[in-house]
Amino acid sequence: MKEFVDRYKAELLENVMPFWVKNSNDNAHGGFFTCLERDGRVFDTDKFMWLQGRQVWTMSMLYNQVEQNETWKDMAIQGASFILKNGRDENGDWYFALDQAGKPLVQPHSIFSDCFASMGLGSLYKITGEDQYAQVAHDTFKRILERQTNPKGKYNKAYPDTRSLKGFSLPMILSNLSLELEHIVGTDTVENLIDQVIHEVMEVFYQADTGLIMESVHLDGSFSDTFEGRLVNPGHIIEAMWFMMDLADRRGDRTLMNKCVEIALRALEYGWDDKYEGILYFKDILNRPPQQLEWDQKLWWVHVEALVCMAKGYAYTGNEKCKVWFEKLDRYTFKHFADSAYGEWFGYLNRQGEPLLTLKGGKWKGCFHVPRALYTIYTVLEKVDDKKLLVK
Amino acid sequence: MKEFVDRYKAELLENVMPFWVKNSNDNAHGGFFTCLERDGRVFDTDKFMWLQGRQVWTMSMLYNQVEQNETWKDMAIQGASFILKNGRDENGDWYFALDQAGKPLVQPHSIFSDCFASMGLGSLYKITGEDQYAQVAHDTFKRILERQTNPKGKYNKAYPDTRSLKGFSLPMILSNLSLELEHIVGTDTVENLIDQVIHEVMEVFYQADTGLIMESVHLDGSFSDTFEGRLVNPGHIIEAMWFMMDLADRRGDRTLMNKCVEIALRALEYGWDDKYEGILYFKDILNRPPQQLEWDQKLWWVHVEALVCMAKGYAYTGNEKCKVWFEKLDRYTFKHFADSAYGEWFGYLNRQGEPLLTLKGGKWKGCFHVPRALYTIYTVLEKVDDKKLLVK
Repeated sequence: MKEFVDRYKAELLENVMPFWVKNSNDNAHGGFFTCLERDGRVFDTDKFMWLQGRQVWTMSMLYNQVEQNETWKDMAIQGASFILKNGRDENGDWYFALDQAGKPLVQPHSIFSDCFASMGLGSLYKITGEDQYAQVAHDTFKRILERQTNPKGKYNKAYPDTRSLKGFSLPMILSNLSLELEHIVGTDTVENLIDQVIHEVMEVFYQADTGLIMESVHLDGSFSDTFEGRLVNPGHIIEAMWFMMDLADRRGDRTLMNKCVEIALRALEYGWDDKYEGILYFKDILNRPPQQLEWDQKLWWVHVEALVCMAKGYAYTGNEKCKVWFEKLDRYTFKHFADSAYGEWFGYLNRQGEPLLTLKGGKWKGCFHVPRALYTIYTVLEKVDDKKLLVK
Repeated sequence: MKEFVDRYKAELLENVMPFWVKNSNDNAHGGFFTCLERDGRVFDTDKFMWLQGRQVWTMSMLYNQVEQNETWKDMAIQGASFILKNGRDENGDWYFALDQAGKPLVQPHSIFSDCFASMGLGSLYKITGEDQYAQVAHDTFKRILERQTNPKGKYNKAYPDTRSLKGFSLPMILSNLSLELEHIVGTDTVENLIDQVIHEVMEVFYQADTGLIMESVHLDGSFSDTFEGRLVNPGHIIEAMWFMMDLADRRGDRTLMNKCVEIALRALEYGWDDKYEGILYFKDILNRPPQQLEWDQKLWWVHVEALVCMAKGYAYTGNEKCKVWFEKLDRYTFKHFADSAYGEWFGYLNRQGEPLLTLKGGKWKGCFHVPRALYTIYTVLEKVDDKKLLVK
């Protein structure tokens, strides 16, 4: 897999990270610009908290894992200063969006703001040892666990008890977040949470009859024949499966590992668009019309997470189907998403594979999925040839 | 325009209304199914309040204006019974969604639920004289006016005062709703509201430099260089312009009428997709990437409201450009949206003009825009040849 290792590493270090270093620092107010045109020009100055926290994470993680690039560290520190100063309300909950100067724009209605803030601060703590980062990451993590049964708080518009569904997103993020914060929250907390999360994802949200994981289920795990209950997000399943593979690896659990690979392959086959290639964004499990008008689009994060998942699946199990899928996804993504002219990758393609928006970053796309995927893939594939990762 | 009159009337009475009569009555629980597949099969049983109120309106209005079809009246009455029994919370505010049996699913976060409920009940009152309908329509209208400065109430996620924008939707709907409820709320109320609404739409939201109306502006009417402030919804402008034309007609205000035609033509030219035809759903006034992933899609309501607007523009002013646009829109919509095989029209096309979803009704599309447009167009065009509508 040497060819891939070199190409993915070069893409990360020569094409993707330079784009963010060059274009995303807000030297006037702190924090990061994420709304960037194809060529890197800032087209909107709002600061979306998901992406502020994620960029702190990416910059810190790469400093820690790839090279001690002081620019990355400085950017992570300045981003953290901005969010620590401006990002929380009086309860310590994280706003969804701030304006350029840091004034709150949108109230804390999304607990994922909190997830990515703590993930970023936890990662920065690893490279600086500054107590403040650990403290806020820890406090935020505690609040996430307190809020997890009603993550939207007073902004929850569901009428109580008519239709109680639970969503797959939060357990999925927690499976990854707990590992990211183990150095802060401790191994006991992590192990307990892992037990819960594996159960939720692999038994409650997973549906044996279809072999897929649903976005929402009844509280008892049964299928809900509603818009929310019928929704399948193939990219979400595939991303969750590599989070789960890391847990299977940690526990040396070969049965769990094989199950993850099986579900990921099933989700890829299910989500693949035979007409135009690429992975569809949403499908309805009963083939009814989905609510999401963007259902047929091809999104960057779906495709890069699928690459990560197949790379890990192959590295952990040697399953040849993962290799075949990895190569197929690699051809599609580098042809359609990568942009060698200006750096970074396109985020949103139409069904036909043409850029629907030419932005490199926006409200939801920042310095996160692409660099994380490129880093993860090349480091995983480096170990494949000597079978270093195969679960015993 | 005789050819159009006959075709639009036949489309309404032979293709569109029979589809709703046949497929949308919920005989078990009352109210209407709106989630209907291409062939009319129910694919979801949730009851979305916008569409329940709108269908009561359409059925009552057609009974009143077109023919005394008892089935339409019976359906309007049963729909009204369902929403009166189940639709409101303890403040009299209308839920956003109910389940099939009428239990509340989604809290009253959208004041448009209230707008369409009162519009439906007001229309039904015209054909039944039942006081209850007038009473609830009146109470609801009062609550709408009370809530108009913060229509989302406690579900408003905007942080106070950082960026105060106001939206174009509510004044636009009020301009139409007040006329619909004049027999209930009285002419003084309507005249006062019309003064305000004409000012808001034609002076505050209208931007002289572009000749377009923005979706959101600062409280003083100035442009906001933000995602919300840059957003243009051409269909919205065009629909609003025929609401305004009706006000201009009511007042015999030729200057206002000509201004409406001018803005509508400008919005059509601005929104028209030169590559694939049809009207784009959203654009960014500064050509920056919009947030809306569905920006390039072609929606039924945009196109039928444009037909109405051009028919009215031509009837009211004789402007030949309106006739040319009407004919161009007529060719596009009948080719791409109408479905002679199963009745009603497709709702959502991709940019290329192919059905993106094959549903005939869903969470947002019901028995409203298509029948209202077909009825309005044929009755307006009937009067064109004798120039009956031309403003003096």
